[in-house]
Amino acid sequence: MGPARSVEIFRVRGSSRERVVDHAVAEEPLEVRLHGRPFATIMRTPGDDRSLAAGFLFAERILRTADDLGTIEHCRDGDAPAQNVLNVTLTEDRREGVDAALADRRHVTSNASGGLCGRLAIETLRAELDPVASQYGLAVALLTSLPIRLRKAQPLFDATGGLHAAGLFDMTGRLLAAAEDIGRHNAVDKVIGRMLIEERLPLSSNVLFVSGRTSFEIVQKAWCAGIPLVASVSAASSLAIEVAEEAGITLVGFVRDEAFNIYAHPGRIL
Amino acid sequence: MGPARSVEIFRVRGSSRERVVDHAVAEEPLEVRLHGRPFATIMRTPGDDRSLAAGFLFAERILRTADDLGTIEHCRDGDAPAQNVLNVTLTEDRREGVDAALADRRHVTSNASGGLCGRLAIETLRAELDPVASQYGLAVALLTSLPIRLRKAQPLFDATGGLHAAGLFDMTGRLLAAAEDIGRHNAVDKVIGRMLIEERLPLSSNVLFVSGRTSFEIVQKAWCAGIPLVASVSAASSLAIEVAEEAGITLVGFVRDEAFNIYAHPGRIL
Repeated sequence: MGPARSVEIFRVRGSSRERVVDHAVAEEPLEVRLHGRPFATIMRTPGDDRSLAAGFLFAERILRTADDLGTIEHCRDGDAPAQNVLNVTLTEDRREGVDAALADRRHVTSNASGGLCGRLAIETLRAELDPVASQYGLAVALLTSLPIRLRKAQPLFDATGGLHAAGLFDMTGRLLAAAEDIGRHNAVDKVIGRMLIEERLPLSSNVLFVSGRTSFEIVQKAWCAGIPLVASVSAASSLAIEVAEEAGITLVGFVRDEAFNIYAHPGRIL
Repeated sequence: MGPARSVEIFRVRGSSRERVVDHAVAEEPLEVRLHGRPFATIMRTPGDDRSLAAGFLFAERILRTADDLGTIEHCRDGDAPAQNVLNVTLTEDRREGVDAALADRRHVTSNASGGLCGRLAIETLRAELDPVASQYGLAVALLTSLPIRLRKAQPLFDATGGLHAAGLFDMTGRLLAAAEDIGRHNAVDKVIGRMLIEERLPLSSNVLFVSGRTSFEIVQKAWCAGIPLVASVSAASSLAIEVAEEAGITLVGFVRDEAFNIYAHPGRIL
């Protein structure tokens, strides 16, 4: 357990393509249970999980003070502790108050940085979706031009220093849709949502380019939409790489000038 | 409606402090209703909201194809359209399937970038929490040293290029807790959660320093914990600034070398 995972990638620099071992930030789901009942699943980097569960439940106002907290313990998976499942108990008084409050909650809220897609377990996704089978490929020169192409379509991008952008291109580099938002996940939802409304799904001849990091949820959204190629200017998480591998999605990161890293399915980069 | 809002800030450069008008990325809640019932609230940058709602419901697998979609319309607020409330209807067949599927869902998932805190409406927060009244202040030289102090405590930070960090300091610059995570919100939850477990809340003599952007949720978490000063290396959203103003929290952004911006309650920067 640590915040980084070793991954084998292709490092492309100009015309050279080299297979090297790199590090990806670890991303795994932590299931938080309240008195044995699933309460929330948090996509997180493993480490300090008890603190995370306590802080999460505090911000949710389930815990109001340390006095509300009974225990935080790893559930057992046979003889071993289940690293990704924590059970939290409340003191008896607080438990009654929380049961009443939870019965009152009608709906959930997504935050600036993402949707609630993780709600669907990865297993559900596997059961529902086939791997993306698109035979389309993207030329290296086109791939490395995507950051500039997206920037040109977003005159307001970076005016505040606080916006993320997502763009959907075809394999000739033509921009089909672009969006910007404080949340990278929202920008992706806007782009895919527009295509859905225009009845242009699945997007099997397109590449999704995003600013910032690629997490599990970005790859999941691309998978739902049938997008065969996801690229970003920054890093990809361990779970994003795993899911891309399984989904048949070509995943590329750190696209800058003449260089980038390929994390999964390199065959579509020509 | 646009992605940026004008805000009055103090721009500090070395020993000069100037009041200027700057731009902050807009962040507002979008309530998505399904057949008139609240389904989710998304913290987003206004613009392209129909696409966002469609893409969000697609990634949630409520919409599977464009054929499932009936209408997407702004709700009315008297005579005017309510800009932050959209009602979505499904076709009759899909509606039956969704009703059955939703009854099955037991719990929600948070994503890599944040908790579900937004779940609590801002109004609830206002009703539950008093403004932070701490009289502590932080010297300029200490504030600008926080990025380096946090970096020193995080030997793994940036090894992957994919981690966010949060640190809690006292007003003399001593680090009390630090955490790193793929999600900025998780890193904050880890730090505050550790303090909760150690029964050290409220954190009225501390400053929270985060890598990356400051959104509404970061300020909300700080408010819950009674933290009077939040600083980051990057931009703050319009809603983060509004809530900090109301919560009595000093909000600082773009802390780099000798310079930074003060968005709210400048009195605590000495």
